Amino acid sequence: MLRDEIKEVHMAFQYLTNVPLAKARAEYEEVLIKEGFAGKTENISVMESCGRITAHAVYAQICAPHYHSSAMDGIAVNAKDTFGATETTPVHLKTSQFTVVDTGDAIPEGCDAVIMVEDIVQEQDGVCLYAAASPWQHVRQIGEDICAEEMILCSCQKITPSAIGALIAGGVLEIDVFRRPVVGIIPTGDEIVPPTKSPKKGDILEFNGSIFSAMIREWGGEAVIYPIVPDRLEAIEEMVKRAVKECDMVLLNAGSSAGREDYSCQVIDKIGDVLYHGLAIKPGKPAILGYRREKPILGVPGYPVSGIIVIEEILHPLIDLWNHRKGEEHPYADAVLSRAVVSGLKYHEFVRVRLGYVGERLIASPLSRGSGVISSFMKADGMLEIPQGLEGCEAGSRVKVRLLRPLSELKQMLVDIGSHDPLLDELADLLHRKNPEMYMSSAHVGSMGGIMAARRKENHIAGIHLLDVKDGSYNVSFLKKYFPNGGVRLVECVGRTQGLMVAPGNPHNIQGIEDLQHSGLRYVNRQKGSGTRILIDYLCKEKGIRTDVIYGYEREEFTHTSVAAQIAWGTADAGLGIFSAANLYGLDFLPVCIEQYDLLIPDDAWDTPMVQALMEILKSDAFKASLKKMGGYEIGEPGRVRERLEPAKKSE
Amino acid sequence: MLRDEIKEVHMAFQYLTNVPLAKARAEYEEVLIKEGFAGKTENISVMESCGRITAHAVYAQICAPHYHSSAMDGIAVNAKDTFGATETTPVHLKTSQFTVVDTGDAIPEGCDAVIMVEDIVQEQDGVCLYAAASPWQHVRQIGEDICAEEMILCSCQKITPSAIGALIAGGVLEIDVFRRPVVGIIPTGDEIVPPTKSPKKGDILEFNGSIFSAMIREWGGEAVIYPIVPDRLEAIEEMVKRAVKECDMVLLNAGSSAGREDYSCQVIDKIGDVLYHGLAIKPGKPAILGYRREKPILGVPGYPVSGIIVIEEILHPLIDLWNHRKGEEHPYADAVLSRAVVSGLKYHEFVRVRLGYVGERLIASPLSRGSGVISSFMKADGMLEIPQGLEGCEAGSRVKVRLLRPLSELKQMLVDIGSHDPLLDELADLLHRKNPEMYMSSAHVGSMGGIMAARRKENHIAGIHLLDVKDGSYNVSFLKKYFPNGGVRLVECVGRTQGLMVAPGNPHNIQGIEDLQHSGLRYVNRQKGSGTRILIDYLCKEKGIRTDVIYGYEREEFTHTSVAAQIAWGTADAGLGIFSAANLYGLDFLPVCIEQYDLLIPDDAWDTPMVQALMEILKSDAFKASLKKMGGYEIGEPGRVRERLEPAKKSE
Repeated sequence: MLRDEIKEVHMAFQYLTNVPLAKARAEYEEVLIKEGFAGKTENISVMESCGRITAHAVYAQICAPHYHSSAMDGIAVNAKDTFGATETTPVHLKTSQFTVVDTGDAIPEGCDAVIMVEDIVQEQDGVCLYAAASPWQHVRQIGEDICAEEMILCSCQKITPSAIGALIAGGVLEIDVFRRPVVGIIPTGDEIVPPTKSPKKGDILEFNGSIFSAMIREWGGEAVIYPIVPDRLEAIEEMVKRAVKECDMVLLNAGSSAGREDYSCQVIDKIGDVLYHGLAIKPGKPAILGYRREKPILGVPGYPVSGIIVIEEILHPLIDLWNHRKGEEHPYADAVLSRAVVSGLKYHEFVRVRLGYVGERLIASPLSRGSGVISSFMKADGMLEIPQGLEGCEAGSRVKVRLLRPLSELKQMLVDIGSHDPLLDELADLLHRKNPEMYMSSAHVGSMGGIMAARRKENHIAGIHLLDVKDGSYNVSFLKKYFPNGGVRLVECVGRTQGLMVAPGNPHNIQGIEDLQHSGLRYVNRQKGSGTRILIDYLCKEKGIRTDVIYGYEREEFTHTSVAAQIAWGTADAGLGIFSAANLYGLDFLPVCIEQYDLLIPDDAWDTPMVQALMEILKSDAFKASLKKMGGYEIGEPGRVRERLEPAKKSE
Repeated sequence: MLRDEIKEVHMAFQYLTNVPLAKARAEYEEVLIKEGFAGKTENISVMESCGRITAHAVYAQICAPHYHSSAMDGIAVNAKDTFGATETTPVHLKTSQFTVVDTGDAIPEGCDAVIMVEDIVQEQDGVCLYAAASPWQHVRQIGEDICAEEMILCSCQKITPSAIGALIAGGVLEIDVFRRPVVGIIPTGDEIVPPTKSPKKGDILEFNGSIFSAMIREWGGEAVIYPIVPDRLEAIEEMVKRAVKECDMVLLNAGSSAGREDYSCQVIDKIGDVLYHGLAIKPGKPAILGYRREKPILGVPGYPVSGIIVIEEILHPLIDLWNHRKGEEHPYADAVLSRAVVSGLKYHEFVRVRLGYVGERLIASPLSRGSGVISSFMKADGMLEIPQGLEGCEAGSRVKVRLLRPLSELKQMLVDIGSHDPLLDELADLLHRKNPEMYMSSAHVGSMGGIMAARRKENHIAGIHLLDVKDGSYNVSFLKKYFPNGGVRLVECVGRTQGLMVAPGNPHNIQGIEDLQHSGLRYVNRQKGSGTRILIDYLCKEKGIRTDVIYGYEREEFTHTSVAAQIAWGTADAGLGIFSAANLYGLDFLPVCIEQYDLLIPDDAWDTPMVQALMEILKSDAFKASLKKMGGYEIGEPGRVRERLEPAKKSE
């Protein structure tokens, strides 16, 4: 009844509902179980059963060991024949009364004990014993390890490598396990195309299916990706019907919202039933919990990040339910939030964070929350959940974070927050290749952002390139200003050439900063607080150029590479940046100056194995080779400490 | 040079060396790397790459998104055309100056901003705007997620589902990864036979290969099991040569010691080189670290537990080395040792333990240390390592234990230490099936053992059946005696029939306890402290039978099932035990008495979810059905509290 009411309300208003996740999940499972949802089983070879889940309890067929065997090299005897033997009253056994055995040999019929070879005195027609054997001494008895009919594994238990050994030893060669549930994935959308290296404008690459398949396989399911279906009601309906017939669960990807061409809800409602359309989660709100009889049909939003959250929160528990398993508890850790996170009161929010240990504190830095940004999901080390009804978390507050990678890995993570340069990726690569236990994570927040992060003790290193306009020097005066109590080093990295990036052939014939004022020219800038932004501001001021007349001066990108990308794709005509970024895209480059790009390293971080390993990398020939390949760098003495501000003595 | 010296010493004396594990492992890896050991790579489809390891850094081929798209439903314009628009000075755009766009549509050539449909006033020949658009507003720009030429993954990084999405979005469809190393496993031994349900006496089932294969696959390798080779030098040599040619690493299983028919060392030395023969570990000592050129050839002991330790400690790191990975750090936890563990000074010992939370303490109970006992490996929740040079650990001492299952699972583990009954396995099965998050572990130490464990706060429940010979009552008087301060409940389980188990047809025509004295009759007993042992002692005393004339009275088994197994296999003629055990093996049964089998539950344990869940199971019809199927039980009111000893008030 409840179900029908919800459905009626939902269909009548065509609004998305805003059901709390836990409630929706519980009701969904309840409805499915009522409809007959349950794990199907299959009989497979024990040898191939590792990681699978037993469908019912498994009992041994034979004992292990299945015969009495000698545990020593010696002779097998009937213990009774030796009774009474002592130092003073030895017992003599004739050859017919014993059998010579090696370790592992079966004990002959009529014998029930083994006497070690060391305790035997050989005689002409037999042996002489100076001590009695007790029955079953030095015998490995039948069933010592496993008894026939004993339960080896209980129901719904994961089969481990050693369980495979125990099963075979117990004479069990085939086993009933839950069949892997088959999940059908149906990608829909007129603009969706199969993965390709050269998509046309407007094409959206279908990669959700590959992400979801990989997740489903990790959870113990099988995935089938159906051909892409255009946005036509009948075509979608036909494909869903086919998938429901062929699979145990179905994901209908995209079209799950309530827009013009969002047919998912309509289709599911026609073929089966819709329990809920709309969850109180973000990302992931426009999800559809539908089903046909006992088979779940899940409407999944098209944005990859939304889709991932929905199938993690709804599909994963269903696969566990199929296997009669309780999902492994997520590991959590306490962390300090580096920036405030604002959350809508209406939703339970999932915020991806990067994590890193700086000193004793685990620092959580929120990543981009765009639901289309798959790269931020890939970079995430943890997930911060903000329950419905909360407005968010303040910077510096302690939060509980679900870990997406082991704590042991996070403890060896070099945390870089500062100015961007492609060389940082090369450093990360060299560091991890040389020290497989170490990782480096980089957040690009500009030079000033790096300094501020270091003051808040949130990073191990920060790339900075800050020009002191008073004397033309780089970085040192900023250090002195922002670290009045010292305790920080400045390590030489590279000199790098800044200049104007323009399209190949310089079609607009730009000769210098002055030309940026020309009408019809589109500039692309870096974000405020970045060294490059400070540089262009300074250069304009020096030349008396009003920046408000430069078209696009407020258009901000966060990396040199993304500035270069805009010019390469013809959506901007010029941007200030470093040579190596221009070089990546084959752009023309007008050098403006050479600046000093250094690494700021607080004393606390200096002593970590990660920073010390990085110093080795900076000094290495491999790093120099990388720089030469990228181009535009002046290589002096990377890794040299240029400046050290001693920590101020504590006043007494 | 070092290597040759070691070899010479080793070959000259034919002794096993006793090298510390860490030293041997480090030297082995060093030698192999010098010989050219390194991960081979292959190019595979990104869609199939989940869980694989990148062979080198991977860069994006295209930007994601790869075109500017609208982030809203509305119109795309050139922002310049809207400059100056305000509430009082609206701007009019002609139809030619804008394009209607939906979310996700490409931004047309010449446009650089989107105005939301809500902010537009439609006119006859165009639109009217009351606010200027800023360049790039509501536009999802090229490269917002990933820029072409940006590093997506660094070298030697594990590929996750979301990384697959990022790679495809970045136009990367194939990827170089480390090929899974192929490990060849060669089983040897005249007595070894392929797995079968009906082995002949003396046959040893080959299950090591299946255990090792499963482990190797879990670590990211591929396994090939070669046919079983008899104990002949030439045959083994030929097979090793073949495996070295076909595989990246080779395991030669059994024959790794220095006995008469142990050819492994000889063969490896002939085909390649032996670095060490003999490690200072237990189990696992007789291992051989050999190689031919860059390919490791590992001599692995035949006892499964020894073999598992050796390949975990030596082969696993080699697979990680192949992949340029540092193995994940094992999780450890502090535990309290329930029994003393004695260790040899000469070896680093690996002791398998069962773990369970009782109250706040994690209790570690050492399992059987026999290296042939695969079932104890299967049951192990953790591994206690006792470094070389230590004599062991005392009972009650705090130890660091390597976890083999997640702590969250251990927290929901119902710990049973007490008297054995096959019904305990059925309870474990029903409990886990009903509550997938809960597990039950049982250790069979007899009724008195269970009482002692409860006093030491090491278990949640203990099965007990202790006859008070003074009044013929069961259990209650023992509770009062051993828990003078109370704080414990006695929960009714079953009445069960004890009797003499004899071979089918009762060939020795045994009529009662008195007949056990007959010459030629072989008895099999239970261990001291078990309720059944106390019962037989009592019965003999009552009837005036001298137990020292009963043949086999000192032969002790730990479960009813194993007593039954000895009679079924004809290695004993009679044993006292419960009907259900006799029934399992189809034995004849002479009832002696009906005894009360109860569960002792300390107050602290009573309130745990696991014990409460168990009470539900005890009262369930499913449990009663199980009991009826097993037979020999009197079912009263399972789950009823028969007796509660209130905790003593603290004296003031």
